[in-house]
Amino acid sequence: MSDRPPSNKPSPPARVSIAAPTGTRDLYPVELARRRWIEDQWRKVAVRHGFEEIDGPTFEQSELYSVKSGQGILNELFQTFSGKDPEQAKAAGAGQAPFALRPEFTPTLARMFAARAGNLPKPCKWFWQGPCFRAERPQRGRLREFWQWNCDVIGGSFGPDEPENSERAGLDAEVLAACAELLVLCGLGPESIKLRINDRAAAARLIASCGGAGREHEALVLLDRRAKSHPPEWAQQFAALGIDLARFDAEARAVSFDSPGFASLGQQIRGAGLEAWCVVDPNIARGLAYYTGMVFEVIVDGERAVAGGGRYDNLIELFGGPPTPACGFGMGDVVLSLVLQDKKLMPSDKEIARALGLRPDVFVISNGAPENDAALPGVLAGLRRAGLHARRSYKASKNIGKLLKDASDQGSLYAVILEDAGEVSVKDLDQNKQRDGRVRLEDLLAKPREVLPPGGLG
Amino acid sequence: MSDRPPSNKPSPPARVSIAAPTGTRDLYPVELARRRWIEDQWRKVAVRHGFEEIDGPTFEQSELYSVKSGQGILNELFQTFSGKDPEQAKAAGAGQAPFALRPEFTPTLARMFAARAGNLPKPCKWFWQGPCFRAERPQRGRLREFWQWNCDVIGGSFGPDEPENSERAGLDAEVLAACAELLVLCGLGPESIKLRINDRAAAARLIASCGGAGREHEALVLLDRRAKSHPPEWAQQFAALGIDLARFDAEARAVSFDSPGFASLGQQIRGAGLEAWCVVDPNIARGLAYYTGMVFEVIVDGERAVAGGGRYDNLIELFGGPPTPACGFGMGDVVLSLVLQDKKLMPSDKEIARALGLRPDVFVISNGAPENDAALPGVLAGLRRAGLHARRSYKASKNIGKLLKDASDQGSLYAVILEDAGEVSVKDLDQNKQRDGRVRLEDLLAKPREVLPPGGLG
Repeated sequence: MSDRPPSNKPSPPARVSIAAPTGTRDLYPVELARRRWIEDQWRKVAVRHGFEEIDGPTFEQSELYSVKSGQGILNELFQTFSGKDPEQAKAAGAGQAPFALRPEFTPTLARMFAARAGNLPKPCKWFWQGPCFRAERPQRGRLREFWQWNCDVIGGSFGPDEPENSERAGLDAEVLAACAELLVLCGLGPESIKLRINDRAAAARLIASCGGAGREHEALVLLDRRAKSHPPEWAQQFAALGIDLARFDAEARAVSFDSPGFASLGQQIRGAGLEAWCVVDPNIARGLAYYTGMVFEVIVDGERAVAGGGRYDNLIELFGGPPTPACGFGMGDVVLSLVLQDKKLMPSDKEIARALGLRPDVFVISNGAPENDAALPGVLAGLRRAGLHARRSYKASKNIGKLLKDASDQGSLYAVILEDAGEVSVKDLDQNKQRDGRVRLEDLLAKPREVLPPGGLG
Repeated sequence: MSDRPPSNKPSPPARVSIAAPTGTRDLYPVELARRRWIEDQWRKVAVRHGFEEIDGPTFEQSELYSVKSGQGILNELFQTFSGKDPEQAKAAGAGQAPFALRPEFTPTLARMFAARAGNLPKPCKWFWQGPCFRAERPQRGRLREFWQWNCDVIGGSFGPDEPENSERAGLDAEVLAACAELLVLCGLGPESIKLRINDRAAAARLIASCGGAGREHEALVLLDRRAKSHPPEWAQQFAALGIDLARFDAEARAVSFDSPGFASLGQQIRGAGLEAWCVVDPNIARGLAYYTGMVFEVIVDGERAVAGGGRYDNLIELFGGPPTPACGFGMGDVVLSLVLQDKKLMPSDKEIARALGLRPDVFVISNGAPENDAALPGVLAGLRRAGLHARRSYKASKNIGKLLKDASDQGSLYAVILEDAGEVSVKDLDQNKQRDGRVRLEDLLAKPREVLPPGGLG
């Protein structure tokens, strides 16, 4: 990167202690394995449900976010510019840098679909996972950099305002099914976790019928904040829109999957076997400006949201594509991890290592003879070439017992000891069992999987 | 993200066409699968060789990069700041934003090791893969956002200036072995690709012995640019340092793994069976300011560099850790992809889909009876719950032939047709072979893997 002269001399003692930026994470092997395990569950569910993975830039042109939400959104993002370009730095100084780190993936997805709409299957089922960024104050469950999973179904032959369309309801249910299936795979059950579903059009009708006609937008914004607000204050604000709150709550409680606006979706939810997971909740509004129809949040124990999404039928068109309906959801790793830990559903680190294929197959030990010390790197290379995860000890010790303990501590299934006269002895560390007789080193290298069967010596 | 009122009405027709930022990529499913395939090879090699994966923030404090390379480095980075913080915007306006997108992972790794040095195994073998960012003019093989793989061995009990230390040489060789093994796994051979290895201390001695004593640093910087420079001009600059170029080239050609400074490494390279891959090349200097000992580049067909790395024994200490030697390399996805494509070594998209487990197991089709149309989502849900990758057609057609073609086009192994009276017929689409007789739907759902064996009907 740098054109500064390289130095062969030790650096001047300008030792500094630089921390990771606030709200970001350093993930050491055990912690990263947990995130990789979550990613693996996400991927499994998405693939099984027929979603195909895409990826886009980590930063986008700022306009991609401000076009729908206004310039104010840029205050909530990490802004980015090329350090090479003084014009960009100048714009950054005014709080209007040309780029922003993505706070979510949906705008990128809409832009990507719009760019190739003519050549893509309809509907297009896409999933994505990667880092997102928000310039928020970090707190439990909210970080400035977090990992996110999205599943979206883009396309459909129904019109934008058609009520009770069964094709649209079927695609909405596909999105809900993928989300629920992830919960199943993680061991979560519908007794503690619910997909709370609303519909923006139905919600607006309900608000209007309770006295809020003409103030529906403001009422939805308030509803989105209800769970986080001080109840009496919130009730006052809601009433100030002319809405009869008692009536709203009574009518909201009466809404079900048999009510107008929800019946088609209810039928699809039952058809997919999701009825235990789903409830109608007219209080769900979702903050994002682009939702147009069904919206939902996945709520754990009545409070924490682990995922959310909905239908956004105008976004593809906004980004220059043909009018195209779409529906999807996002789930972050931070809250999901907390929930799995709290409920003791996160597998142990050992289980995760096995699930991810990280367990060493074999640990190679020299018996201490100089020719075996010298042969060790070649034996490791041969076993690795054959596809085995092979390790060695870096301890100075020549004590076989200590080296076997190192092998065991690193979780290896086998230890192979290089013995004299071109032979090896083999030990199954899980069963603490020695293989009868020795094996010729050349036979081990020719057929490692016969000498070291993946299931142990049995 | 936004507090703007959500809207239930179609957006105003403010359609815009926003492109991805220059030098970044939109990866649609086929293109992303190719990158995922490369990531998979990287991961396999790293895990087999005993490296453990870590991850860090996508952006770091700018100081992490400037502390070693000077403030000038910030001109080559994408700078980043919180849009919420006017002070940060102001600093950004002066070209000194508090954060930068990582141009490489090594500073993060050094910071992470320094932060926990006392509790980490020694040596620590870490790998990483993820996006990196450079504010360069994009060109073939160089993008502003690219994917990078790193393997590093941190630690060792040798002193900083000890020549010909066999432990150090052994760890250097482990790094080289992981790099070479990736090439093997991709089908590349040592006839077209070489690990060109140098040592900064040995190079400095060679420069001094050819008349460049006292100008070693400048000479190394020039050497790093030699391959990309106009030869006569370059020779003039090199000669201006007082170095006899003809003599330098003659002595450089004579250097081998038996020469002083290279003998221990040569022995380890032979021990690991890497001699066909490795050559000594005193012209390799590597631009990065932090290298201290062995440096190498992986050069294809004598010109393109697909990877590079070396020993950086002072960096951990610089970031506040204990004095700790370290060695590693990085490989990007962009040049590697180009090389594999040029050499026709990139697997076909179909092979990649199978290797990544993306092939659909089964495509479910209704025979057109209304009760089967209604049952279809439940059948899909049941098969997916059992772990199968199950799809359906979204075509309006009821023509079984057209729906079977859709199944085939999407690469599904099986088609299952929901027939009357609770039965299904099963077709192996690879072999175009119908299963004898029908199966009860309840039997399919109870034991899907018996009805639909992973290897086909056979």
